[in-house]
Amino acid sequence: MTTPIIIDTDPGQDDAFAILLALAAPELEVLGLTTVSGNVPLAQTADNARRILECAGHGHVPVWRGCPAPILRPARPVPEIHGDTGIDGWDWPEAARGPEPGHAVDFIIETLLGRADGEVTLIALAPQTNVAMALRRAPEIVPKLGRIVFMGGGYFAGGNMSPAAEYNIMVDPEAARIVLGSGVPITAVPLDCTHATPAPVGWSAPLEALGTTTGRACGGMMRFFEIYGNAKHGTKSRPLHDAVAVAALLWPELFTGKLCPVDVECAGELTTGMTVVDWLRQTGRPDNCLWLAGCTDPGEVYARMLKLIATLP
Amino acid sequence: MTTPIIIDTDPGQDDAFAILLALAAPELEVLGLTTVSGNVPLAQTADNARRILECAGHGHVPVWRGCPAPILRPARPVPEIHGDTGIDGWDWPEAARGPEPGHAVDFIIETLLGRADGEVTLIALAPQTNVAMALRRAPEIVPKLGRIVFMGGGYFAGGNMSPAAEYNIMVDPEAARIVLGSGVPITAVPLDCTHATPAPVGWSAPLEALGTTTGRACGGMMRFFEIYGNAKHGTKSRPLHDAVAVAALLWPELFTGKLCPVDVECAGELTTGMTVVDWLRQTGRPDNCLWLAGCTDPGEVYARMLKLIATLP
Amino acid sequence: MTTPIIIDTDPGQDDAFAILLALAAPELEVLGLTTVSGNVPLAQTADNARRILECAGHGHVPVWRGCPAPILRPARPVPEIHGDTGIDGWDWPEAARGPEPGHAVDFIIETLLGRADGEVTLIALAPQTNVAMALRRAPEIVPKLGRIVFMGGGYFAGGNMSPAAEYNIMVDPEAARIVLGSGVPITAVPLDCTHATPAPVGWSAPLEALGTTTGRACGGMMRFFEIYGNAKHGTKSRPLHDAVAVAALLWPELFTGKLCPVDVECAGELTTGMTVVDWLRQTGRPDNCLWLAGCTDPGEVYARMLKLIATLP
Amino acid sequence: MTTPIIIDTDPGQDDAFAILLALAAPELEVLGLTTVSGNVPLAQTADNARRILECAGHGHVPVWRGCPAPILRPARPVPEIHGDTGIDGWDWPEAARGPEPGHAVDFIIETLLGRADGEVTLIALAPQTNVAMALRRAPEIVPKLGRIVFMGGGYFAGGNMSPAAEYNIMVDPEAARIVLGSGVPITAVPLDCTHATPAPVGWSAPLEALGTTTGRACGGMMRFFEIYGNAKHGTKSRPLHDAVAVAALLWPELFTGKLCPVDVECAGELTTGMTVVDWLRQTGRPDNCLWLAGCTDPGEVYARMLKLIATLP
Repeated sequence: MTTPIIIDTDPGQDDAFAILLALAAPELEVLGLTTVSGNVPLAQTADNARRILECAGHGHVPVWRGCPAPILRPARPVPEIHGDTGIDGWDWPEAARGPEPGHAVDFIIETLLGRADGEVTLIALAPQTNVAMALRRAPEIVPKLGRIVFMGGGYFAGGNMSPAAEYNIMVDPEAARIVLGSGVPITAVPLDCTHATPAPVGWSAPLEALGTTTGRACGGMMRFFEIYGNAKHGTKSRPLHDAVAVAALLWPELFTGKLCPVDVECAGELTTGMTVVDWLRQTGRPDNCLWLAGCTDPGEVYARMLKLIATLP
Repeated sequence: MTTPIIIDTDPGQDDAFAILLALAAPELEVLGLTTVSGNVPLAQTADNARRILECAGHGHVPVWRGCPAPILRPARPVPEIHGDTGIDGWDWPEAARGPEPGHAVDFIIETLLGRADGEVTLIALAPQTNVAMALRRAPEIVPKLGRIVFMGGGYFAGGNMSPAAEYNIMVDPEAARIVLGSGVPITAVPLDCTHATPAPVGWSAPLEALGTTTGRACGGMMRFFEIYGNAKHGTKSRPLHDAVAVAALLWPELFTGKLCPVDVECAGELTTGMTVVDWLRQTGRPDNCLWLAGCTDPGEVYARMLKLIATLP
Repeated sequence: MTTPIIIDTDPGQDDAFAILLALAAPELEVLGLTTVSGNVPLAQTADNARRILECAGHGHVPVWRGCPAPILRPARPVPEIHGDTGIDGWDWPEAARGPEPGHAVDFIIETLLGRADGEVTLIALAPQTNVAMALRRAPEIVPKLGRIVFMGGGYFAGGNMSPAAEYNIMVDPEAARIVLGSGVPITAVPLDCTHATPAPVGWSAPLEALGTTTGRACGGMMRFFEIYGNAKHGTKSRPLHDAVAVAALLWPELFTGKLCPVDVECAGELTTGMTVVDWLRQTGRPDNCLWLAGCTDPGEVYARMLKLIATLP
Repeated sequence: MTTPIIIDTDPGQDDAFAILLALAAPELEVLGLTTVSGNVPLAQTADNARRILECAGHGHVPVWRGCPAPILRPARPVPEIHGDTGIDGWDWPEAARGPEPGHAVDFIIETLLGRADGEVTLIALAPQTNVAMALRRAPEIVPKLGRIVFMGGGYFAGGNMSPAAEYNIMVDPEAARIVLGSGVPITAVPLDCTHATPAPVGWSAPLEALGTTTGRACGGMMRFFEIYGNAKHGTKSRPLHDAVAVAALLWPELFTGKLCPVDVECAGELTTGMTVVDWLRQTGRPDNCLWLAGCTDPGEVYARMLKLIATLP
């Protein structure tokens, strides 16, 4: 039995790893990728997604373009982190095929409405604009979603865009609030979890040693991705945030966390975009999110990732 | 030359008057009605819209259902104002036809994309959720819109749901902020303007005296609508807020206002949903909205309305 | 029977008129002036107050310096409105005496605690920092205050520092919130009222024609004060905001208003510093403020002012 | 050379320990205690402070009562944590002497103005209302303060009154913002630090075994204080938060932290009262606070505390 999934993404090197893992995992069936303004402008996201799919020999998976900007706020691409293309670090061949005609939000809604209750898992690796727009436009998709797994936020770890806020949530805090309030079961993979799951130091070497095209692409991206992050944080290796989200879906036994009430601050002067986690259940609000806060064996996580990536061409 | 219009609405007695005026006005061509959660829950809005269209002999105009709740906040129907049906006051025959399949937001986007730049005017008589969702999802519709005329807000007059906020804006302040920031030319018809345009005292009498079905429906709604409003405000007659918005589109010479910067407070403790009008241009922001603040001849407005309604069956 | 008053002030030409009126009014006994950072920096306020008192032959009235900045926010002097000295427009002789040693907040507290309940009226013509600090430090002064009359805020008229906020409140919104929540009976003299009470066009002429020193000082200040205001607002005359507050205390029969709930927005993105007036009593909060919104005879107000000023040397 | 200190406090069992440590430490000279509304209402704080001083044989140290409520918000005593008296757990003898006449804020200002620059350290163990009021009223005290050490806030650890806010800061966030923005060198001892410094399990036993009156009082308070905390947090021992602040002043070598920019959120919907720590220096704001985030040897901290307490009668 495989789980059908939709991946909402703004690739991004770490998105690329996440997509490749999902394609390689026999437990998952990738129904389509939807792209959204985030790490890179919308125009680039779909092309990046196509290049990644085709490089990995999964060119048949469709890509849909979604919203060009957050619900209420301006887009905030971060080329200083991901490079001009978003997937800098390897010389990707041009994609043979373009994105599908039509809108990502429609693809999400129509796909979900055609499935049984709880059948599809949505993996959100970007600002959650597309997901929120789909939920607001067609609330009847709520029961169709078995789970939303999102990479984003931070509570014990603070933020990476401000002292309180992580990038994916800060860019579209209203969207994240909609998602967290939707009633869909949610797993959050925040900085608390990803910072506890850094890649092995020098992980580009074993990737490149795979000898495959995908291995070389991954090695190159890994090298690029670490430069900015290690310089900023004074570290020797960085977590592949979005890939950790797919890892947490595949191997929950390697992660720790707690079901608790989580919401997003949208009106603070200093804290807008903060994921406010009621870890001690002080608010009396209902639990709505499995908040992953740790990883019991980061080495094992990346070892399994390497094995999966090795199966791709 | 007629102006093609789309009316986004949550009928509501005063929406009904607005729709009837638009149907009767030879200058306007109603392409369709889109409905949204507002005065009444979404489920009722489309049926109300159908009944109004068919009663007025315009059953061919299509109706599309849109969003069931505001972007970020819960729906807030107000049966204490509009009655259980929203168009209480007359015994409307059941509609012969239902709403169209498909979503209001798609209808708006597809209709606009099929038209020339600046061709269509959108009249927004409800919380602006549908309009904002269309703008965010498909920003390429911006140049297609010649103008958005909305009923909502209040600056000199204060609010009717809180000291600072009017109903349509307070229910979905984020949507209104998106609309005002969209770049589309906007005419606002706020409480400042509608309170300056009260219906003649006892206006239900001449409506009923028209002898038509529509006249009787209008007279009945008028009687109902005045009860709550006059009791709340200690007045002898009430403005038909949404109808004044259509009047302002048809007869701009009867209204006064100023082009100035307007935005919506979304983060206040006491003021969320307030339309903040920079009437004195103190902020240095660009003008984005023609803010109508007065009416030079309310009697003439309602006299012309009566003439138009008289042309309906 | 005279009413003992304390005037909290940041002179300011219109403060000067207010102080002169209070000195001249036989119904009032000015116990002292307290000064606070506002129109001009604190350092200048006390000296300005001394010059005004001595010019008017009331050099015996003591002046106390108070807080050099608002409670939570930076000071915002406005020399573009009041000139470099704050009371530009006349060549004031240097004061013979300085301010008293000690702090304005102590003077307020000690004076009130030495009086009978309800005996003293406090007239607040500036950001309300001193008043709020006294109330917070010594809440036992609440019953001693018969009333606080403040110039500040605006509801129907909007603001003069932002579309939503008037200067005195915007500069220290937290202080105004403390004052309005204190339980002391309050009369607000907002822009709604002062804009309805403009000085007669060319009012500097009759002031100068009084032939007194004070008349000449008033005429000069009037000329200066009108220049910026008329240019900004396109008017031919300006209200003497703070003087209207003293007028409203002296001649309540010339003003209109309503007792209703009033609070201050301290957390808005666009509206911080707005006085939120629940004119229609929609919030269910208790009435706490007599909100003056109009003047029935501005000509009479200024005629009476002229008569009082004429009694000064 | 001893450091003269003022302790601002709202005792509170953990305040009591902090006061006792300061009295016993030969490096510190306690000039006076100022009390403020916090854990218990103001009326009780001064009496508690007197009882603690006299029990410890330091009845000559004066106590001053300060502000009865936070600057902008209502008081929030927490008898569920500290018991009805605030120092429940021992049967304290009545105090022989009362608090001094006069106000805590005056005592702080006058004491500081009589000292050399940088001479006095202020230890703030409560909502920072008194400290903020003194700073706002008399900014000339800023250079006199060598340092403010406060217990309050939390960043990595979250809050104890809400998911984002710790008690002392949440009760008067505006006061904390004033203190952090004052320019005085600041050491923060937040939950991040105190949670890393729990008392030894069963620490009441060695306290009682001291055989002194103070030892018995401390043992009794320790027993009481642990009950609520351990039940709430599922722990076996609790940190004596306020005492850790004095420990951090006395033995900085046992604590870790970083100088960085810190501010307080005062306008959030979910996060008001949060200390926003720019640990990664992402904001570009100037460093204003030494934020202690860890303890290298909690056992040693409490061993040293025990030795000091043993010197008291």
